[in-house]
Amino acid sequence: MKEQYYSIGQVAKLSNISIPTLRYYDQIDLYKPAHVDTLTSYRYYKESQLYILDMIKSLKYIGTPLTDIKTVLNYTPAELFCFLEHQEDVIEGKIQGLQEIHKNLQQTKKQLQQQMKTALATDVFEKTEDLQIFTLPVENYAPQSIPNDCYGELIKLVEAEGSRISSHYGCIYPLLDYNSMDEVRCTHIFTPLMTDRLNSHPAYRRNIRLISESRFIGIAFQYHPDRYIEHYQRLYHYIRSKELPVADHVYDLFTPTRYSQHKEEEFMVELKVQLL
Amino acid sequence: MKEQYYSIGQVAKLSNISIPTLRYYDQIDLYKPAHVDTLTSYRYYKESQLYILDMIKSLKYIGTPLTDIKTVLNYTPAELFCFLEHQEDVIEGKIQGLQEIHKNLQQTKKQLQQQMKTALATDVFEKTEDLQIFTLPVENYAPQSIPNDCYGELIKLVEAEGSRISSHYGCIYPLLDYNSMDEVRCTHIFTPLMTDRLNSHPAYRRNIRLISESRFIGIAFQYHPDRYIEHYQRLYHYIRSKELPVADHVYDLFTPTRYSQHKEEEFMVELKVQLL
Repeated sequence: MKEQYYSIGQVAKLSNISIPTLRYYDQIDLYKPAHVDTLTSYRYYKESQLYILDMIKSLKYIGTPLTDIKTVLNYTPAELFCFLEHQEDVIEGKIQGLQEIHKNLQQTKKQLQQQMKTALATDVFEKTEDLQIFTLPVENYAPQSIPNDCYGELIKLVEAEGSRISSHYGCIYPLLDYNSMDEVRCTHIFTPLMTDRLNSHPAYRRNIRLISESRFIGIAFQYHPDRYIEHYQRLYHYIRSKELPVADHVYDLFTPTRYSQHKEEEFMVELKVQLL
Repeated sequence: MKEQYYSIGQVAKLSNISIPTLRYYDQIDLYKPAHVDTLTSYRYYKESQLYILDMIKSLKYIGTPLTDIKTVLNYTPAELFCFLEHQEDVIEGKIQGLQEIHKNLQQTKKQLQQQMKTALATDVFEKTEDLQIFTLPVENYAPQSIPNDCYGELIKLVEAEGSRISSHYGCIYPLLDYNSMDEVRCTHIFTPLMTDRLNSHPAYRRNIRLISESRFIGIAFQYHPDRYIEHYQRLYHYIRSKELPVADHVYDLFTPTRYSQHKEEEFMVELKVQLL
């Protein structure tokens, strides 16, 4: 029985792979025609080599680079099995990475939603919120004078573990009756955590604060250095006049509301205290 | 209060982004220094523009191309929210795609494992298996003479729905007392399905056969056209002599066991009949 030969166009039709792709596979020696007519340079493929294209497709689909496919085609079934096991790990890693990105996106959306809501508020508000922050102790700095080095260190620590930084930063200081911001001394700086990646890390146990579904009392305003104290005092006096049972420290969260290079920068400050 | 300026090295340190990357961001107008010294060409960045880098990082992390990041930085919070929603869909799509690949890999591994196991068997075997195949009716063809066009159509249909082809194909024919393969006439051709994608598709309801956890009786052998009938008869007579209650048709699955271009092709045939 003589074996049938197919032109490149016929192979393209039978395999659902385009002619240019088949030509390219020939060029890179991945899948070569059984015969090339010396006169016309037409490619002819044997019927019995068609099935190899399915394997090439499958390997491509599972993310194997074309250069590796060439090697994999020569594998024994046992070697192929090992390769597939490895590829499975690779895919699992990718899925996990994307799931983290997905969580990060949801967190960012939540932050943004809160920001859009609170941006309009000028009065003291109460809200229920999760707090998931990475903190670093600092000494003797007022909120506006914390050196960028400190935040740089925060970024490095969070990113070293493969976690991601949001562009929100903050500091923590005691809830006291200040008359000027110069009197304020921060105990910590912090950044909200976008994933759970660091939560279970023993080395960072002391750095992480997780408060879920807690009531907070706060105030939010457009940042201006001269008007900060005025907003702080409004919050402070509200808490004291109502004799609210609160924690002894304030979270100050600094959020950029504009990222354009061509416009003046704009920040929102949110001060909040946990209700006990 | 005069604003502080940073050199590119300082920004790199503070932001955990490399100097070449910062230079590149300048080149593509994504993130430009506030001031460039005309004499030395040194770049100087304003303290207040540092936070933009966090946003660039976040956007890059969620898969935004650099060219799009430039646009996104100018978004209002509401526009940014829409963008994040869209990006969430994109990520979800990617996760779903990878999960399908993952399932495909597991299926391929299972197929391969079965193939390695049965390759050694020469006798009739019994096994419990799932069958998940996409079928197409054919008429008047013997198993060895089904034109490649038919399989080409099968490939196109399965791939049109984004599902993937494995490199295994087969045909279905009545279980009868054949004396020669020329007497056999197939009713269907098929290919195993690697994902669930097509299962619920109403248009393909008639094409899909799902049999889960069923007992099969079968025989597997290295393909050779002249010896096919001998193996078939061994299976047929075994079934009849034991008076086994079986379905009235045979699944013939054709599996390449070698994909190398440099070696002679090699196929395994598995014939199996469902036990009732």
